[in-house]
Amino acid sequence: MISVIILGSGNVAQHLTRVCLETDNIDLVQVYARNLEKLSFLNSEVNITNNIKSLEKADVYIIAVSDNAINEVAEQLPKNYFVVHTSGVTSINELGDRPRKGVFYMLQSFSANKKVDFNKIPFLLEASDKKELLILEKLASSIGKKSYRIDSEQRQYLHVGAVFVNNFTNHMYKLGHDICQKHNMSFDILKPLILETATKINELNPKDAQTGPARRNDTKTIEKHLNLLAEDKKELYNIISKSIQNEYKL
Amino acid sequence: MISVIILGSGNVAQHLTRVCLETDNIDLVQVYARNLEKLSFLNSEVNITNNIKSLEKADVYIIAVSDNAINEVAEQLPKNYFVVHTSGVTSINELGDRPRKGVFYMLQSFSANKKVDFNKIPFLLEASDKKELLILEKLASSIGKKSYRIDSEQRQYLHVGAVFVNNFTNHMYKLGHDICQKHNMSFDILKPLILETATKINELNPKDAQTGPARRNDTKTIEKHLNLLAEDKKELYNIISKSIQNEYKL
Repeated sequence: MISVIILGSGNVAQHLTRVCLETDNIDLVQVYARNLEKLSFLNSEVNITNNIKSLEKADVYIIAVSDNAINEVAEQLPKNYFVVHTSGVTSINELGDRPRKGVFYMLQSFSANKKVDFNKIPFLLEASDKKELLILEKLASSIGKKSYRIDSEQRQYLHVGAVFVNNFTNHMYKLGHDICQKHNMSFDILKPLILETATKINELNPKDAQTGPARRNDTKTIEKHLNLLAEDKKELYNIISKSIQNEYKL
Repeated sequence: MISVIILGSGNVAQHLTRVCLETDNIDLVQVYARNLEKLSFLNSEVNITNNIKSLEKADVYIIAVSDNAINEVAEQLPKNYFVVHTSGVTSINELGDRPRKGVFYMLQSFSANKKVDFNKIPFLLEASDKKELLILEKLASSIGKKSYRIDSEQRQYLHVGAVFVNNFTNHMYKLGHDICQKHNMSFDILKPLILETATKINELNPKDAQTGPARRNDTKTIEKHLNLLAEDKKELYNIISKSIQNEYKL
C-alpha cells in the first residue's frame, strides 16, 4: 500500500484523484487545494484541506498544479517529504533543494469531460534516488501499465514532441473540420482517414507513411489547394508543405 | 452484378482491383495498363491489356491513374461508355464531353504495403445523371459501407481538408518521431497520445478538444519549446501556434 497526498484541483489532479480512489493498493490520504470549492467534484470520499501547513503524513506528495505554481507549492512542504510534480516541461529541480524529489508525468491530454484509460498512458518517471524511483514505479504500475525512466532533459524534448503529435495534430483536425462545415459536408467523412493515419504508424515509420502532394512534389495540386484556402490559412499550408519537402530533399 | 474495367496500375488501381476480385457481385472484366509489367501483381485471375482501343464492354470504366493523365486516358474511350475517375482533386469535367461520367473517390490514403479495410472508407460519389449515380452507389455498397453524394466543388475542398488531417498530421508524427530518436527515447511513448488525439474527436469537436501551450496562451512554455527546437523547426512551431491562438482570439 502506498499512501498519497495530491495537491491541486485542475484536470490532472482530478483524474489522478479519481483513479487513486479507485485503486486498491493506493491510500489517498488527502487532497489539497487553495480554493476548496474546486474540489466539489469529491463527495466526502477523501479528506480535503486548503491549509498546506497542516497536511497529513504520506509516502508521496504529488503536486499537480499549473507549471508556474509548482515551485511555490513545493517551497511550502517540509524538506523531508518525498515530493513529485506531474509536469512535462518542468525540471525536477523546480521542486527545490530537498533530498527526496521526483517527477510523475503521465503523457496524455487530460480533458475535463473525457474519462481517461490509465492502462494506455505511459508514465514517465524520474527521482532523486533509486528508492524513490521504486516508489514511483510501484505507484505507476498500480494505476496503469507502462512506465519509462526519463530524465528532466529528455522529458522537455518529449513534451515538445507531444505538442506536435497532439496539440498541432488536433489543430489540423480543426482546420479539416472547418473546411467541411463551410462547404456543407459532414466532418464524419474525414474521421476514418484520421483514424487510419493514427494507426498506420504502428506498422510504418511516419517517414515511410507520408503521402500527399507535398511528398510527391506535386506543385500543380499544391497550387490548386492554395487557391482554395482562405488567406490566413495559405501560409500555414505553405510552411508545412515546405517542411515535408525538406524532409525528403524535394 | 456490375461489370467493371479498371484503367491504371498505381496504388489505388491495385487496391481496387483486389477488392473487385474478392467481391461476389462485381464482375471485373479487364484491367488496363500502358505498361503490362506493372500488372504483375495479378496472377491471371483477370484479363489484362495494354491496348486501350480494344477494351471489352462493361457497365463502368474506372480510370485510376495519376491526376494529370485522367483526361488523356478518358479521351481515348468511346463517348457512350460510362467513365469515372477516382481522383479527389479532379473535376468530373476532366472526363471530357460525354453524357455518362462520374467520380468514384475513396477518401483514404492508400499505401502499397498496407491492406485497406474498404468497410471503413467513405465513398464520395458524383455522376452526370441519377441512373449513373445509382450504379456507383451499388458499386460502393458492394465494396464498402458508407457513401456520400459530393459534387466536384465540395470534393476539391474535402481534398484540402484531407491534406490537413492526413498528410500534415503524419508530418507532425514524423517531427515527434525525430525528436524521440534524437534524444534516445522510444517513439512508442508517443503512440498512445497519438491514438487518443485521433479518437477524442469522436466525442469532442476538435475546437473543444484543443489543449496545449498555444491554446492556453502559455508564452513561457512556447518560449521554452522554441529554444529546444532546431532552427528549421522553429518557424513551423511558431506559425502553427499562432494559427491556434487566432482560432481562439488569444
